[in-house]
Formats: sequence, C-alpha cells, structure tokens
Amino acid sequence: MSPHEESVPLDPSDWEEFKALGRRMVDDMADHLAGIRDRPVWQPVPDEIRTRLDTPLPRTPTPAEDVYEEFRTTVLPYPRGNIHPRFWGWANGSGVPVAAYADLLASLVNCTLGSGENAAMMVEHQVLEWLKEAMDWPCTGSGLLTSGASMGQIVALAAARQAAAGAEDIRGGGAVADGRQFTVYGSTQTHHSIEKAVELLGIGGRYFRQIPVDTDFRIDTEVLRTAIRRDREAGHVPLCLVGNAGTVNTGAVDPLEELLAVAREEGLWFHVDGAFGAFAQLLPTHRPLLAGMAEADSLVFDLHKWLYMPFDVSCVLVRDPGALESTFSSSADYISSTAQGPAAYSLAFSDRGIEQSRRFRALKVWFALKAHGIESYAASIAANIDQCAHLAKLVDGSDRLELVSRSDLNVVCFRYTWPGAGPDELNRVNRDVLSRLQTAGEAVPSHTVIDGRFVLRVANNNHRTVHSDFDFLVARVVELGDELVAASR
Amino acid sequence: MSPHEESVPLDPSDWEEFKALGRRMVDDMADHLAGIRDRPVWQPVPDEIRTRLDTPLPRTPTPAEDVYEEFRTTVLPYPRGNIHPRFWGWANGSGVPVAAYADLLASLVNCTLGSGENAAMMVEHQVLEWLKEAMDWPCTGSGLLTSGASMGQIVALAAARQAAAGAEDIRGGGAVADGRQFTVYGSTQTHHSIEKAVELLGIGGRYFRQIPVDTDFRIDTEVLRTAIRRDREAGHVPLCLVGNAGTVNTGAVDPLEELLAVAREEGLWFHVDGAFGAFAQLLPTHRPLLAGMAEADSLVFDLHKWLYMPFDVSCVLVRDPGALESTFSSSADYISSTAQGPAAYSLAFSDRGIEQSRRFRALKVWFALKAHGIESYAASIAANIDQCAHLAKLVDGSDRLELVSRSDLNVVCFRYTWPGAGPDELNRVNRDVLSRLQTAGEAVPSHTVIDGRFVLRVANNNHRTVHSDFDFLVARVVELGDELVAASR
Ligand SMILES: Cc1ncc(COP(=O)(O)O)c(C=O)c1O
Ligand SMILES: Cc1ncc(COP(=O)(O)O)c(C=O)c1O
Repeated sequence: MSPHEESVPLDPSDWEEFKALGRRMVDDMADHLAGIRDRPVWQPVPDEIRTRLDTPLPRTPTPAEDVYEEFRTTVLPYPRGNIHPRFWGWANGSGVPVAAYADLLASLVNCTLGSGENAAMMVEHQVLEWLKEAMDWPCTGSGLLTSGASMGQIVALAAARQAAAGAEDIRGGGAVADGRQFTVYGSTQTHHSIEKAVELLGIGGRYFRQIPVDTDFRIDTEVLRTAIRRDREAGHVPLCLVGNAGTVNTGAVDPLEELLAVAREEGLWFHVDGAFGAFAQLLPTHRPLLAGMAEADSLVFDLHKWLYMPFDVSCVLVRDPGALESTFSSSADYISSTAQGPAAYSLAFSDRGIEQSRRFRALKVWFALKAHGIESYAASIAANIDQCAHLAKLVDGSDRLELVSRSDLNVVCFRYTWPGAGPDELNRVNRDVLSRLQTAGEAVPSHTVIDGRFVLRVANNNHRTVHSDFDFLVARVVELGDELVAASR
Repeated sequence: MSPHEESVPLDPSDWEEFKALGRRMVDDMADHLAGIRDRPVWQPVPDEIRTRLDTPLPRTPTPAEDVYEEFRTTVLPYPRGNIHPRFWGWANGSGVPVAAYADLLASLVNCTLGSGENAAMMVEHQVLEWLKEAMDWPCTGSGLLTSGASMGQIVALAAARQAAAGAEDIRGGGAVADGRQFTVYGSTQTHHSIEKAVELLGIGGRYFRQIPVDTDFRIDTEVLRTAIRRDREAGHVPLCLVGNAGTVNTGAVDPLEELLAVAREEGLWFHVDGAFGAFAQLLPTHRPLLAGMAEADSLVFDLHKWLYMPFDVSCVLVRDPGALESTFSSSADYISSTAQGPAAYSLAFSDRGIEQSRRFRALKVWFALKAHGIESYAASIAANIDQCAHLAKLVDGSDRLELVSRSDLNVVCFRYTWPGAGPDELNRVNRDVLSRLQTAGEAVPSHTVIDGRFVLRVANNNHRTVHSDFDFLVARVVELGDELVAASR
C-alpha cells in the first residue's frame, strides 16, 4: 500500500462528511449570531448541564456530529454573554464574526509563530506595522502580539528592568539592582495585572507604589513626585512609571503628558496601560486626551477588547527597537537559524517575549482589518463613546439614579437611589438590582465599588450595542429598584 | 426604528453571504488537508508575496471574499509546514482537523475564561479533570491550560518560589529569600524556556545550575547532589529541581524516580517538563520509563505537541491544590464575585496563572477528545514511536548514515557520513543535505548540534506520518549526500 492510500486515524475518515459538518456549524452559528439579540444575555447553568460536564475521560470515539450536538445543547446556551448587544460587563469585547472565520483558517493551517520563514510570520509582522500606524507609534519601534494585556505588562516591565540594568546583570543575576530594590509607580486605579507582573518579576508587590487619585480618578502627580524622591532617598531604584489610558474601574485617563515628563526627568521607563482606552487614538476627537501615549517607552492594548477581536489577541509596543530582544532572546542549538530554508528568517517573535510556540493569532487581525477597514472600527468605537454619553445623560436626568463616574471613554458607573436611603441599604438594593437584571438575562453590566458605593458598571466594548439598549437598561434599573424598595417596605 | 432593525456595521451585512463564505472555506480547506501529502512540505516565500504582505493599514473595507482569496494565494501556499506528513521539525504538532472546527466555535461564542459561571468554565474544568486522569495525576491536584509549556514553566516555577517562601514574602517582597539567593537545577539538555523562566522571575539565569548529562543525555545525579550541597554551603536556597520527560534535543528521559527522591530528601520542588514526552504516559509500555512523573510537584505538557491539538494549548498540573491560587490570586473590586449571576462561580482560572482574559482553548480539547477518544491518540503516539524505531533501524542499517542519538520516544538524530570525512566537511555536507531537502519541500526535519556534530533531527509529533515516509527520508538523505560529496570531488 502506498502512503497515499493509508488512512490517517485522527483525520476525518470521510472528508465529505467532515465538510458537511463544517457547513452545518457555519450555518447554525450564523443563525445564532444573527438572532443573538432575541436570546437571554446570560442564564444560570442548570444542575443537569453541570452533571453532563462531569464525566470520565472519553476512551473511544463519538461521532463528531454527536459531539457537536452536545456542544449545542450543553455549551452554547450557557455562555459568558459578551457576544450579546446588552453585555457590558468587565472589559470583554464582542467579537467580529469574520475574524472567527480567520481563526478557523489559523487552526487548520496551524502555523506556530516563534521563528522561521513563512507567510504567517510576515502576516504578524504586517499586523504589527499596522498597529504601530494606528497608534501613531514610531515606525522604528518594535512589538509583539500577546494573549492579553496581562502578558503584555509582564513583557513591558521585564524590558524596563532589563533596560535599567543595561547589561546582562538582570538576566544573569536576578531582580535586584546592585543589591538595591526596584520600585514601580502607578495610581491606585491601576489594573491588578501590573501588581501581578511586579510580583512575578520578583520585584515584590509592595514595591509597586500605588499613588492616590484626584476626584476624576487620575493619578496625583504631586504625590507621585514625592514618592519617587522618597524612594531614592531610601536607596531604592525607581524603575518604571505606569500611566493609565483608561482605568478599568471608571475609564479615567491619567495626565499622560505630565507623566511622560516626570518619567523623562527622573529617568524612568514610561509604560502605558491602554488595554481598552488606547483605541481612542483612532478618533481625532480623542487623540488630545491621549497626548503623550505615543511617546511612551511601552504601550499595551487589547485587540480582544475595543477592537472587538475574538479572544485572544493583544499587543505590546516598545519604543527601543532592540529592547524586547535584549530581554528575551535565547540561543540554543535546536532553534538556531540556517542560511536558507524554513529556519531562515531575520525575525523571531519568540525572542521578543515569553511564548515559544505561538498561535497564528495575527491572521484574524489581518483578515478582519482588511475586511472592515480601520475606519469602520473607529466608527464603532465612536458609537460606543456616544452611547455611554447617552447613558450618562439618561442617568443624570433620572431622580432615581445617581451618576457615580463617567469618563470621556466607554465606562459609566451609576446606581439606583431613593430619598432617605442609607449606605448599606443602597448597596444591598443595587446588588439585588444587578443580580435580577443579569439572572433574567436582560442585560449584563458588571459592578465595582467606588468610595464604598456598590455601583453598576457599564464598560462598552460592544459593536452590537445601539443607543436604545441604554434606554432599556435605565428603564429596567429604575423599575427593578422601585420594586425592590416597595417590597422591602 | 427598533434596535432589531438597525444594522450592525462590524457584523456581516448579509448573513446568507457570510454563510456561503464559511461553507467555501470549509470545503476548500478540507480539500487542502485531504490533499496535503501531494503538496510541498515547505517552500520559500517569493519576493512578490513579501511585497504583498507589506502594505499600509487598510482604511476602508474589502469584501471578505476577496480577503479570503488573498489568504489563499498569499498565505496558504507558504506555511510553516507542520500539517504535512513529512514534517518533523522542532517539536510542532500536526493539528487534528476536528479540533479546528471547535476553535471556530470557540471564536464565535467568544467566551473568556478568567472567572464566572458559564458552561465554558465548566468545560475547562472538565478538560483539566480528564488530563489529570490521563497523566495519572492525583485527583486532588490542580491545573491550568496555558498557551504553551514556556508559560507553564513560569507558572510552575512561580508556584515553587511561593511555596518555598511560605508566606506573603515573595509576592510582597521580591525574589530573594531572606536576602539569600534561590537556585534551580536541571540538566544541560533542559529546554531554554526554563532558563527564561528563571530570568523572568528575577532569580537570575546564572542560578539555574545546568548539570552535565551521561552518554544517554540523562542528568548526572551525582553531580546534581554535589551542586545542591555546594549551593547550601554557599548560603544559597535550593528551590526547584527540573526533570525532563523528553528533552528537546534527543528525547532523553531523566531518571525521574531518582530525581523525585533527591527532591524529597533535599526539600526541593520537583518540576517535570514533559512538553511532549509526558504523553508516553498514555502507553502501558512506556509508563515505567516515566515512573516518578506523576508524583512531581508540577508537570507541564503541550497538547499542541504530542496530542496533535492546533496551537495553542498546553497544561500545567500541580500537586498542591492551593499552590496556584496562593501564587496568583488577586482581589479587586471590579472582579469581585457575587452570590449569583455571571460573576458567581467558585473557580477562577485567572487566579491560577498570569492570564486574565483567556481564550476558550479548552473547547478544542473537549471536542477532539470526545470525537476520537483517548485510545486513538494513544495509538497514534505509539505509531510515532514505532516509526522512529523504524527510522533508527534504517539509519543503523545504512553505511552512509550515522545514528547520533535515539530515544525511547519520538526523537531521532542522525547524519550523512562517508569514509574519511573530516568533522567540518561532515557538518557542511549535512547542512546542505538538510537545506536541499527542506527547500525542495520534500521533507522537513530540523537540526541540532550534538557534541559538535551538526545532525538532522526528527521529532515526530505527526499524526499523518506513516512508516514509509521514513523510507523516503532515508533514501533521499543518502542520495543528496552522495550527490554533494561527488560534486565536491
Ligand atoms: C485597564 C486594563 N488593563 C489590563 C487588563 C488586563 O487585560 P487582559 O485581560 O487582556 O489580560 C484589563 C482587563 O480588563 C484592563 O481593563
Ligand atoms: C522539552 C520542551 N520543553 C518546553 C518547550 C516549550 O514549549 P512551548 O513552545 O509550548 O512553549 C518545548 C518546545 O519545543 C520542548 O520541547
């Protein structure tokens, strides 16, 4: 038997059947997405489903059609909810459908993007060039796609540490600078992934100095300057200043230009966490708000947030073209390059970060940016900002609602209130309002706590949301609040 | 206009057209995979293609059909090559097609798996239970899916450091143990991702002690014991011992039981890097070789390697049920959980590692394990081992080939040779043989250097490979070698 005729056990035994299944998935899922607005945003997972997701390791094959059927009954109806137009929880994106097709192609061609000459590597390079262009980043800068902003922060902070040490010391010798302690600065509103990164790098979470904010949740630069000075006096080595382009709690943007100036004066690495907020750079109206961002030493932004890409894809950019390689490049015989062939390429993404095997996550960005054009994304981002302004106005105009924070971006925090309400009662009722909204599958904002106040938090990275969705939200929150208060009397 | 009637700009403007495109992709790609054997494994990327992958950021939309056409002409013909039956380079898996369908579903439902109650979270939990079962890991252990073994090593080593420190000291205070230096141990054959992890954690690469190996590339445990003793004498704090279940160069398996004993005696964390080799645990014939692995403190293995899953999916398991949470859990108001609703679930994967947003990479594992059953994977792994034994026999039987290393697993290193050849000549000719093989698209082994010898390295994680592919490889290597030597006379 020639190799051509042997069957391949883990390939489909019948490619025509395999095609038929794929076509069914495509049809069903398109219908599912086209009708998503009429489904509950979220619903509890029934015990029966939990039981079905608790079985021993499958030993023998099940027809793929049956597995798909199980997916449709067990998984599909009980999602996180973020593909629904009325989901605004946490900071999850909604997912552009055409990008999901590209993810299918990526999984089928199954390239890994550590190093080597192939078109996939060039696609990622191309995407990085586009993202630099989109962010007005210097074209000499460097970058990497990562699985998320959390990873990007680690990559950026490791580069900062390496740059501070200059030589091989950090990679060879460890976290301390000549026996002294590094320190990192950011506001109290900084996402916890920065603290986790500081911990992971062995700098120690307590040396992440959390600087207080003003009433708009922006870092207090006077306190910052003092903190840096004190740390120097104590013999520490101030390493990195983190600016927020959109805080997770309220969407606040730190005064980035001023932070840039502080960093330059003090010789610190300036890192900007623009996980979602950085995308406002696409809007001429909002670029001034982000002034200074494009001059940072490093920047992270999540394409799976406000560029609506399916999970996971994020980007870290650095200003110094060699910073990532000097932090992460490795040499080993088994990955050395050759003069020609598949191991010959001047670029190795695995030398720019932590991942060696790397999914072809660039393809969905390449595909979906071409298919829609950056202007369509900008329009959707602008619409999300408008929708949040609309929501803030509705909240402001209601005597049953209190606007607790608004931002120039896409985050609004508010709560239900009534005359004579006490703080604990307010928190309890707002918890219940949120829980009812969510559990009925009507809408999914998330929550946070601001100055002790439990608030409903809307973070709008959703390309499917329309203005009237917020009319609905506001009306339901007032109704539910009124009901709850009436019932408790 | 009700919200239902508004169009959603980043959704398809016509869902029927969108379905048609998806069906075309499914059909084309199935044909592509069914015919993969008749295509070149790899080919150089022509300049014209490079130019096409170097354009400015797309501003306006291009019909998705046209973007797909561009993918077909620009990307598809110039892949890394690892889906081809004659690709055995580095340690890349081949990709089970049905898992790619599941990846499409994952991108369309677009769940993120940090925390919260939804079926996707339960699917990942289910998959982790299955993987523990497959690896004979204690059911009380814990785990996490990661993007790769590189990430898994970082997670495991961070947990080791945390466990060594006991208290909050490491997370709060940094990399040093009471002002003393941590040390990590593994053989010279250990994958460089361990050294990178040690660097990242701020321990310092020079404190990763690379212990010499015996002639079978297994760690020398006498030297290891001495190194640990010396480090203690020098006032350092020995932290972690890394055992290899399949080294990247030659597929060697360290004496894991003995390493386990050393680790227990010395109070070190025992981590096993089983990136590909751990899967031999699925074969009763090979389980004895891996004895000790299932008793380690942590283990990583790459499902995108020898379980043939599409990139990316890897797993890290830890013995201590709380170790990951005590290393990585965070609290913040905006991610706090609620009593019910989408934020209510006892498990948070984001508390077990670095990633906050997390792709639904569990779905492809869930789907493809059900569809084929673990026994089919075991059969394919056994076949890959047989094929490598066959290759080693062919090499041994040829007077033109030298077997430089074989393993009990799926890695074989060999080279072309001839009477009277000098070392430099040998290296040059073998480089050329490899380059010609690869560039002609006939086969893609990779290379490494063993004791100064440039060798062809076959790492067989390929479910499409059949025995006769190695007959072909051996015949071509001899032919090409003979030609090159004849030409240089
Ligand atoms: C401001 C900010 N930074 C960082 C992150 C972490 O991003 P990721 O989930 O992609 O790791 C988030 C996520 O919500 C965020 O909002
Ligand atoms: C033994 C070993 N460990 C670790 C790795 C790194 O794995 P990943 O590429 O998934 O990060 C590899 C990859 O080849 C490997 O062979």
